Amino acid sequence: MKNIKLIVEYDGTNYGGWQRQKNAPSIQKIMEDGIYALTGEEVDIIASGRTDSGVHARGQVVNFKTSSTIPPERFSYALNAMLPSDIRIKGSMEVPESFHARYDAAGKHYSYSIISSQQGIAIGRQYYYHIRGSLDVSAMEEAAKHFVGTYDFSAFRATGGSVKTSIRTIYKSYIEWREPYIYYHVTGSGFLYNMVRIIVGTLIDVGRHKLRPDDIHSIIDSKDRNMAGPTAPPHGLCLEEVYYKKEDLL
Amino acid sequence: MKNIKLIVEYDGTNYGGWQRQKNAPSIQKIMEDGIYALTGEEVDIIASGRTDSGVHARGQVVNFKTSSTIPPERFSYALNAMLPSDIRIKGSMEVPESFHARYDAAGKHYSYSIISSQQGIAIGRQYYYHIRGSLDVSAMEEAAKHFVGTYDFSAFRATGGSVKTSIRTIYKSYIEWREPYIYYHVTGSGFLYNMVRIIVGTLIDVGRHKLRPDDIHSIIDSKDRNMAGPTAPPHGLCLEEVYYKKEDLL
Repeated sequence: MKNIKLIVEYDGTNYGGWQRQKNAPSIQKIMEDGIYALTGEEVDIIASGRTDSGVHARGQVVNFKTSSTIPPERFSYALNAMLPSDIRIKGSMEVPESFHARYDAAGKHYSYSIISSQQGIAIGRQYYYHIRGSLDVSAMEEAAKHFVGTYDFSAFRATGGSVKTSIRTIYKSYIEWREPYIYYHVTGSGFLYNMVRIIVGTLIDVGRHKLRPDDIHSIIDSKDRNMAGPTAPPHGLCLEEVYYKKEDLL
Repeated sequence: MKNIKLIVEYDGTNYGGWQRQKNAPSIQKIMEDGIYALTGEEVDIIASGRTDSGVHARGQVVNFKTSSTIPPERFSYALNAMLPSDIRIKGSMEVPESFHARYDAAGKHYSYSIISSQQGIAIGRQYYYHIRGSLDVSAMEEAAKHFVGTYDFSAFRATGGSVKTSIRTIYKSYIEWREPYIYYHVTGSGFLYNMVRIIVGTLIDVGRHKLRPDDIHSIIDSKDRNMAGPTAPPHGLCLEEVYYKKEDLL
């Protein structure tokens, strides 16, 4: 048996999320079907983490075990031929048997894309959260910096997650701005359920002067979900990269 | 009656093209329905030119006559509320009664987007023509320059157009390259039916070494459609801007 690692890009628009589920097509199911078509094997694909319905990925990392004789680095070519155009394998390689895409992940980089204009955009609207009113982006930039550090992020956690600790380390948290586009980037050791989307909803509240940049620390300290902003919609969120070495996070 | 000019962005993916037609939803029809919902008037919208099924626009220009009391510059706001998210009005203004979006157009800028990689892209795939094999982009850059000038472009014209002359002036024709993305930009006095897509198909033949950059002049001279390359697919094409002053073309 070989352990194969894949780097996967997907457009989450038409899926019920990463995980295999009953009521909506999941990316996991489509990929497992593709591998079955290719190898005749019913594999279980392990992802670095689930992405919710509508969330995109440019650098999801997954692994699975196979007895196939397809050369590991050719798996990406062969599997792309079996997959729809909104799921693309960017690379494949053999990894040690012990490699586990979720347990071994040292951290992740997410982006969140916003367009701030009256009319929004037609081209690319699937990937941007459209905010009609104007935003104080300088205040958002200031607020974004306050997320860097090791904290209990309970205030930025939706109910439904089942992890033991809500302490996480954020290494990078910043805004890129090319009017009318606003991109939030965050790199951390891990993220609680809906954490990035709640951070973005809170940054938008800062941009609307409902909160001040300095409020971030007291919101974190409160550990109270009700103190943070709303959960931003999924379609602006993209899993950019998964890191397996601590030093790549810095 | 006021004459209103609109700047329109649209994602052509789900439409049968600009023009009102029987078998597929057209952008013109959806916009005329939106204006009817807003004003109760059955208007005829005049566009700078038709775009084919699947072609996008970031800067289509249209005009129509209305007796509505909506302030001209508010039309974009009001109409956006009536339109689907893949058609967005970027601006509206009153123009002289004589203004005609098609007859008065002095020229247009089109872009054509290509992704050159094995796997293509999932995110944004609606807007890029995916080429699997590698392309000699330097040769394409060289070839693109040869389109600048005033020529009879019959070799780059699909049958079906009904214009009197096939002489056009190309002012700018160049490639922008950010691996793996290739963007072709062309600005001209006007374009024959499928002309930009045939130019792009020909540039791709150059990139594949089926043609040499120097062949462009002899293809133009031949006035023979069979000498040029294939017609590139519509979804890479985008109408970026329409010019109404000759000096803006230079």
